Amino acid sequence: MTAPRRTGTESSTTRAFLLDITERIMREEGYAGVSSRSVAKRAGVTPALIHYYFPTLDDLFLALFRRGAERNLERHERVLSSPQPLRELWELMTEPTRSALLTEFMALANHRKSIRDEIAEYSKRSRRQQTELLASGMAQYGPGLAEIPAPALIFLMGAVSRAFVAEDALGISDGHAEVRALVERLLAQAAPAEPAVEKP
Amino acid sequence: MTAPRRTGTESSTTRAFLLDITERIMREEGYAGVSSRSVAKRAGVTPALIHYYFPTLDDLFLALFRRGAERNLERHERVLSSPQPLRELWELMTEPTRSALLTEFMALANHRKSIRDEIAEYSKRSRRQQTELLASGMAQYGPGLAEIPAPALIFLMGAVSRAFVAEDALGISDGHAEVRALVERLLAQAAPAEPAVEKP
Repeated sequence: MTAPRRTGTESSTTRAFLLDITERIMREEGYAGVSSRSVAKRAGVTPALIHYYFPTLDDLFLALFRRGAERNLERHERVLSSPQPLRELWELMTEPTRSALLTEFMALANHRKSIRDEIAEYSKRSRRQQTELLASGMAQYGPGLAEIPAPALIFLMGAVSRAFVAEDALGISDGHAEVRALVERLLAQAAPAEPAVEKP
Repeated sequence: MTAPRRTGTESSTTRAFLLDITERIMREEGYAGVSSRSVAKRAGVTPALIHYYFPTLDDLFLALFRRGAERNLERHERVLSSPQPLRELWELMTEPTRSALLTEFMALANHRKSIRDEIAEYSKRSRRQQTELLASGMAQYGPGLAEIPAPALIFLMGAVSRAFVAEDALGISDGHAEVRALVERLLAQAAPAEPAVEKP
C-alpha cells in the first residue's frame, strides 16, 4: 500500500523476469542475498534498470510479495467455488512450494515495516476470504465441525498447515501422521453425506 | 553438533556478552546485520576476539541458537514437574519473547545447513521431552483429550502457539479469541477434577 504504482510497467515481461530472478536468489541465499546489484548481475542487466522498475529495495521485496499474494488469493477464489471447498483449501494450504519464501518474508517483517504492513494486510484479506468461503460452504457440511466457529477453524487450518510445511522442510515429522489422520477424520465427517452435486 | 566445543571458554562472561550483542543485532536488523565486524563494533572489541570465540559465522549463529534452546529445554523440564503441566506448557509456548529470533533462525535454516540441522535436532529433542511430559502427566487428566494421541496434541499445541505469537507480532488477531476460548475449554475439561495435590 506504500509503493507508487507504475501502471505502464506493471505487466512488463522485464519486470516479471526481474521478480523471477529475485525470487530465485531469495530461495537460494535468503533475503540477505538480494540487492539491486545482485539481481542486476544475475539478470545480466545494469543496476539502473533494476532501479527503474524498483526505486528502492523495499519496492522490490513488496512487488515480489504482492505477486505471490495475488496468485494465492486467485487460487483461493477458485477453491471457493469447488464442490469440496474445505478439503481443497486444506490441500492448497499444505503445498510446500511457497514455504521457504514466506519464511524469508516473515523474517524481513521483523525489521522492515513496509513488509510487515503488507503481510498483515494480505493475511487479513486472505483470512476474510477464507472465512467467507467456509461460511458459504458450511451449509452443505454435516455437524462434525459445527462446534468450532469459522474464524477459529480457518486459524487452525492455517496454523497446522504452516507447521506441516515448515517442519517438512526441516525433516521433522513427529506427530504428523497422527494429525493428518485426525484432519482426514474431520474432513470425512464434515464432507457432504452424498457425493457432491455439481452446481450450475 | 558440528562446532568444536571449547570447554574453557563456554562459560566465559565475554562469550556470553558477545552472544547478547549478537542477539540484539539479530532482533533489530535481522540475521543479515550479523557479522564478526558488526558484533565487534557494537561490543567495542576487535574482530579477532570474535573469531577467537567463534571461528566462523556459523559457529556464532549456532552458539546463540543453542543457548536459547538449552534455556527452553530447562524451562520445559520445570513445567514437567508442575501440578498443571498441560496449562503451564501452553503458557510457556505462547510467550512472545523468542518469536522474532526464532523467525530469523528459520529463515537462516533455508540456506545454512548447520542451522537447519541444529533446529531439527533441537525440535526433535524438545518434541520428545514434551511428549514424555504429556504421557506422564496424562494419568491425572480426565478423558477430554483422550481421543487425541500425545504426539498429535504436542504438534497441535506447537503449531497453534507459534501462529499466535507470529500473528500477534504482525497485528493479526482474526480467530484468536475463538481459538483461545476453545483451548481454555479443552484445558478445563482436561484438568484434574480435584484441585491438584502436591506430590512428594
